[in-house]
Amino acid sequence: MQRGQFDEDIALEQLDETRFQAQLAEHWCIRGVPNGGYQLAVAANAIGQCLPQPHPLTVTGHYLAASKAGPVELTVDVARVGGSMSTATCRVTQNGRETLRVTATFTDLANAEGPTRVEEQPPDMESPDECINMAEAMGPAFEIHNHIDLRLTPDSAAWARQEQGEFARFKVWTRLADGRDPDPIAMMFYADALPPPFFNVLGMVGAAPTLELTVHVRDLPAPGMLRGRFRNRYIINGFFEEDGEIWDSEGKLVALSRQVGRIMSRGPQR
Amino acid sequence: MQRGQFDEDIALEQLDETRFQAQLAEHWCIRGVPNGGYQLAVAANAIGQCLPQPHPLTVTGHYLAASKAGPVELTVDVARVGGSMSTATCRVTQNGRETLRVTATFTDLANAEGPTRVEEQPPDMESPDECINMAEAMGPAFEIHNHIDLRLTPDSAAWARQEQGEFARFKVWTRLADGRDPDPIAMMFYADALPPPFFNVLGMVGAAPTLELTVHVRDLPAPGMLRGRFRNRYIINGFFEEDGEIWDSEGKLVALSRQVGRIMSRGPQR
Repeated sequence: MQRGQFDEDIALEQLDETRFQAQLAEHWCIRGVPNGGYQLAVAANAIGQCLPQPHPLTVTGHYLAASKAGPVELTVDVARVGGSMSTATCRVTQNGRETLRVTATFTDLANAEGPTRVEEQPPDMESPDECINMAEAMGPAFEIHNHIDLRLTPDSAAWARQEQGEFARFKVWTRLADGRDPDPIAMMFYADALPPPFFNVLGMVGAAPTLELTVHVRDLPAPGMLRGRFRNRYIINGFFEEDGEIWDSEGKLVALSRQVGRIMSRGPQR
Repeated sequence: MQRGQFDEDIALEQLDETRFQAQLAEHWCIRGVPNGGYQLAVAANAIGQCLPQPHPLTVTGHYLAASKAGPVELTVDVARVGGSMSTATCRVTQNGRETLRVTATFTDLANAEGPTRVEEQPPDMESPDECINMAEAMGPAFEIHNHIDLRLTPDSAAWARQEQGEFARFKVWTRLADGRDPDPIAMMFYADALPPPFFNVLGMVGAAPTLELTVHVRDLPAPGMLRGRFRNRYIINGFFEEDGEIWDSEGKLVALSRQVGRIMSRGPQR
C-alpha cells in the first residue's frame, strides 16, 4: 500500500521498549484540536508496536482532557500476549497530563477463519458526485478537510441548508485526500471523522466531545472509497451514543464504531 | 432498593486504597465459568469505590483468560477525577494471572441535563407468559438460571425447537430471580446474560467467548422487568459483534451494549 500524510502523522519515535513519542499534527485538527479518531490511531499504532499480531480488532479510548497539536508521550502496558490475540493499554500524555487512555486487542485479520453471515447491506447512496462536500457544508475552512474527502448524501446534509432533517443519521463517501488507501489503523480515524449526525435534527449545537470511542475492525478494506453510515439513536439528558458502520469499495463491512459523547450546553440553548 | 444475591456476589473486601478482593460466586456460572457480564459488574463495582460519581456511564472489559468461581484480586488505577465524570482502569487477577482488564467512566446519571431525543421504540413483544424460559430452552440445568429469569419470545427460541430462525436476533424479558430491581451496576450483567443470538441461525455452535464487552448505562432503570433486544448482524470469518439494547418497565432505554466475540471451531463444523 502506498503511504501518505496520515502515515507520517501517526508515526512514532521509540523512547524505550514500551514508551514512544508522537507529534499530533495540525493536519487533523479542527480549531487547533486534534480529531479524536486520529488520536486513537496514534495510540493504536503504539500498542501495535508492542504486540505480535498486526491488526487492531477492538480499540477503546477514554478521552480524559483536551489536547492540542504538538508532542505527546505514549506508554504501553501489555496485558496479555497470545498466539492469536494480544491486549495492551496505552496512556497518552501531553505536558505531563494524561489526555487519552486506550485499551486494544490485536489479531491477524488476514488469517481469521470461521463462519461468515452478514444480515445487513451496505447503505444505498447517491454517487459521490451527487453528494455534498463536508468542507463546503461546514462553512469556515478547517484544516482537517484538506486531508479527508467527506461527501454527505443530500438528505444527510439538511443542517448545511439550515433545514431540519428527519433522522440523526449521516451517510457518507470518504477517502483520504491524498489517495492513501484504507487499512485497519485508519479505521480509527474514519470512525470519528464526521460531526455528530444529530446536527441534522438539533442543528449545529455547541461542542459535543467524545467521552469514549470503541472501534471494531472486522475485515481488511479493499482499496478505494469507503461508505459510512452514522447514527445517534438515543440522545438522553445530554448524553448521546453514535454508532458507525463502514463498508469498503467492494461492499464488505470493514469496521463498526460506537461512541458516547455529551452535548455541552451553550448559552440560551439550556 | 432492596438488595439481593447479586449484591452479595459483587461485594468487595478492601485490601488498601486501590486494591480489593472479591469472590466470584457459583451462582452466576455456566459449567463452572463465571458469566462475563457478572465479572464486569464486579470490576465496575471496584472502580466505583475509587471515583466520586455513583454511576457507570461506559464500561469496557477485555477478557484475557478463563476464570473460575473463587477469589479474585482487583487493582484500580485512577486516570482522572473530574467534577462530573471520572475514569479508572481495573485489573482483575486470579491466582496471579490477569483475567480481565476494565476501563470505565462514571458520572451522576440522576443529575444529567441536556436534550433528549430517542429515535427508537422498545421492542414489541409477546407477554412474559407467552415466552420461553431460557432454563428450559437450554436443556441441562445451569446454576445461573436459578438466579436470573430470562424469557425469550417464541421467534427468538427457534434454536430451542431445533428449528432455524430467520435472524440472529433475541428478544427477552428479564429480571433477577429474587426480585432484586435493576440498577446501573446490574446492567453489566444483563448485557451478557444470554447466549449469542446466532444460535437461532447457526444452531448451538461450540463456545463463543467474549473478547471485549462495552456497556453504556444511559438512564436509571425503573423497578420491574426489563426488555432486551440482542443481535449479531456481522459474523465475519468467525468473529461476531453482539449489540444489545435494554429498556426498563416504563419503556425507557436504559443501556446499550456491544461485544466482539469469536466462534470457536468444534470438530467437523469446520
